[in-house]
Amino acid sequence: MKLYLIRHGIAEDKGLGIKDEERSLTKEGRQKTEKVAQKLVKLGLSFDLILTSPLVRARQTAEILIAEKLSSQLEESSHLAHDGQISSWLKDWLEPRNYSQNTQLALVGHEPDLTNWAEILLWGTELLIGGSRRSEFSEVKASLVLKKAGMIGIKLPETGSPLGRSQMFWLTPPKYLL
Amino acid sequence: MKLYLIRHGIAEDKGLGIKDEERSLTKEGRQKTEKVAQKLVKLGLSFDLILTSPLVRARQTAEILIAEKLSSQLEESSHLAHDGQISSWLKDWLEPRNYSQNTQLALVGHEPDLTNWAEILLWGTELLIGGSRRSEFSEVKASLVLKKAGMIGIKLPETGSPLGRSQMFWLTPPKYLL
Repeated sequence: MKLYLIRHGIAEDKGLGIKDEERSLTKEGRQKTEKVAQKLVKLGLSFDLILTSPLVRARQTAEILIAEKLSSQLEESSHLAHDGQISSWLKDWLEPRNYSQNTQLALVGHEPDLTNWAEILLWGTELLIGGSRRSEFSEVKASLVLKKAGMIGIKLPETGSPLGRSQMFWLTPPKYLL
Repeated sequence: MKLYLIRHGIAEDKGLGIKDEERSLTKEGRQKTEKVAQKLVKLGLSFDLILTSPLVRARQTAEILIAEKLSSQLEESSHLAHDGQISSWLKDWLEPRNYSQNTQLALVGHEPDLTNWAEILLWGTELLIGGSRRSEFSEVKASLVLKKAGMIGIKLPETGSPLGRSQMFWLTPPKYLL
């Protein structure tokens, strides 16, 4: 099974009386996301399902992917909102569905959650430095850079837990897809 | 500083009386590598220097990048041959050169060495599972998939050791560059 973790496009700024969860994509964010989606179609990608965070900017990003025919199925999941835990998503959402090996799912969400999910899939845990969480070192940046409208491709193992046993085969900023 | 770790293109098989270090790119390997190089030029990439493993298939890959004008500088380094250690390369090759912050280097080499170098740059160590080396688990695959003629883009921190403090911003198989 393959997961494509996609970060929402460029959204309007916080703090203009708009709640964070209601921030919309800007015109630029919408256009860039459309171009990325068109390129993904050209590259031959399609998804059995697009699962999105319920926040407006993620939902709008997912709707662009649907409009460009990358999938016909769209669902929302609060697991993909801020601070969603991948262990809960695996247990409560993915496992009960019993998808076949060749399923391709797109997950549209936020940072730093998506790269955190990727790290846990690849290494089984958040990355540590000398036994401490990487995020405790203010001068140390995240190990993976996921830009807005960028994506990460991860292959889950055919059997057993995906935690620490998955493989990353793709990580791209949108600029290399335009 | 940015490092682009590039795996050599498709090479002829072992065991036809050809020494491993003398294996050449196949016609398909050469053509695919040329297409990837042309796409990298289109994406606006260029390298201050291309450093290559001395093995023929890597050297030929690097020469294609030079022919397509991705760089005018080519050097060989045995650090990039099989089992080369990134700690030695950093200490003996990179540090003495005192490159400026905006330097972009391409390193052409082999697997599993390149993804091993990437893991060490991102996480400071080979990845462990329950305290054991991932490679000791025969059923567990490498965490990063680097195809022939594929590449990994890594940003080193501006100050301090790059070990465990670098960021991956790009990982792509050649099929998404053709």
